[in-house]
Amino acid sequence: MAGSSSPSGSTNPTSLGALIDALRCLPGVGPKSAQRMAFHLLQRDQDGATRLAEAMRLAIERTRNCASCNTFTELDICEICASPKRDRSLLCVVESPSDMLMMEQTQTYRGLYFVLMGKLSPLDGIGPRDINIDRLVERARDGLVREVILATNFTVEGEATAHYISELFAEQGIQVTRIARGLPVGGELEYVDSNTLAQALIDRRTVD
Amino acid sequence: MAGSSSPSGSTNPTSLGALIDALRCLPGVGPKSAQRMAFHLLQRDQDGATRLAEAMRLAIERTRNCASCNTFTELDICEICASPKRDRSLLCVVESPSDMLMMEQTQTYRGLYFVLMGKLSPLDGIGPRDINIDRLVERARDGLVREVILATNFTVEGEATAHYISELFAEQGIQVTRIARGLPVGGELEYVDSNTLAQALIDRRTVD
Repeated sequence: MAGSSSPSGSTNPTSLGALIDALRCLPGVGPKSAQRMAFHLLQRDQDGATRLAEAMRLAIERTRNCASCNTFTELDICEICASPKRDRSLLCVVESPSDMLMMEQTQTYRGLYFVLMGKLSPLDGIGPRDINIDRLVERARDGLVREVILATNFTVEGEATAHYISELFAEQGIQVTRIARGLPVGGELEYVDSNTLAQALIDRRTVD
Repeated sequence: MAGSSSPSGSTNPTSLGALIDALRCLPGVGPKSAQRMAFHLLQRDQDGATRLAEAMRLAIERTRNCASCNTFTELDICEICASPKRDRSLLCVVESPSDMLMMEQTQTYRGLYFVLMGKLSPLDGIGPRDINIDRLVERARDGLVREVILATNFTVEGEATAHYISELFAEQGIQVTRIARGLPVGGELEYVDSNTLAQALIDRRTVD
């Protein structure tokens, strides 16, 4: 790095330049952040960097996809899928393992999951095959699943993915539901966007 | 990760949990970003992660501090310090290697540098010794340096550091200057903060 006047170190053949380049594989990390991270690691936390390098190597070596729900695990079948306490008649479809974690944190869902590891996105060339739809169909046909709960994001891609899956299962006698849209808990009408409010009105329910 | 309901994976003994923890050594990366980064690396860019781990190992192994200016380099003396084209009578003091890169990008400075690798920050327990002030004094006494240019940041700590260094050199017959404060190039009075405008007024100069 030192001695070069290259803007970001990106064309730099030194090990520091290579580190700055390599850090850019992290999501949301541009040239400036990568440079800041590299300097921080070398200047203040070489032990942390060594631990991180080893952790990456180990995680890649050991982590695989659960044969049942497709999430990351070190086992053939992840702990949730293997647990006898879960309700096998419910199958919740999420886009990513982090969404699955979020669902678990609600502590209100006791069924099983299927993790797509993506979402339909024709513009990016991501079709049904890339998000393991075949495996989902096969999974839902195990004879135990009675309801598929679609918990993909309420983005354009997430909605398209949910729509695609619901069409697919409509023919097969498996009930398909979608998690609710509406105002957030603690939300005020004054501060919510009008699309959300409109949806909350459309999906209004009888007070019991 | 999978099968656990721990909020962020931080207490998780799996290799994925360990990776999420280890990623938090990067500056500006909290539990959510670390989780997102780990999932991204495993899901979409295992090659990038492998390259990054190797780049970190190499950079730590090879990078050291320049014996003259203290910046990161793979050599004993960095290329800038070793260059015969640089003006040895000017010594610019900066806080970090990235600041040095910024100075180089201006393409208007042809002198040498000294990188403090930090700034005075009594509240964080960072004193003159921690930012290599002894080495700076020794460096400035080489008989060639005639002017020390203070280019630390205009933050509270950067200003305190500049003040401390200027006091130190005042007794030694070495001229000390500070880079200018004022409006940015293209700046408009209407949109600049009043402290900057006040300083621009105080530091006004004769039009030639």
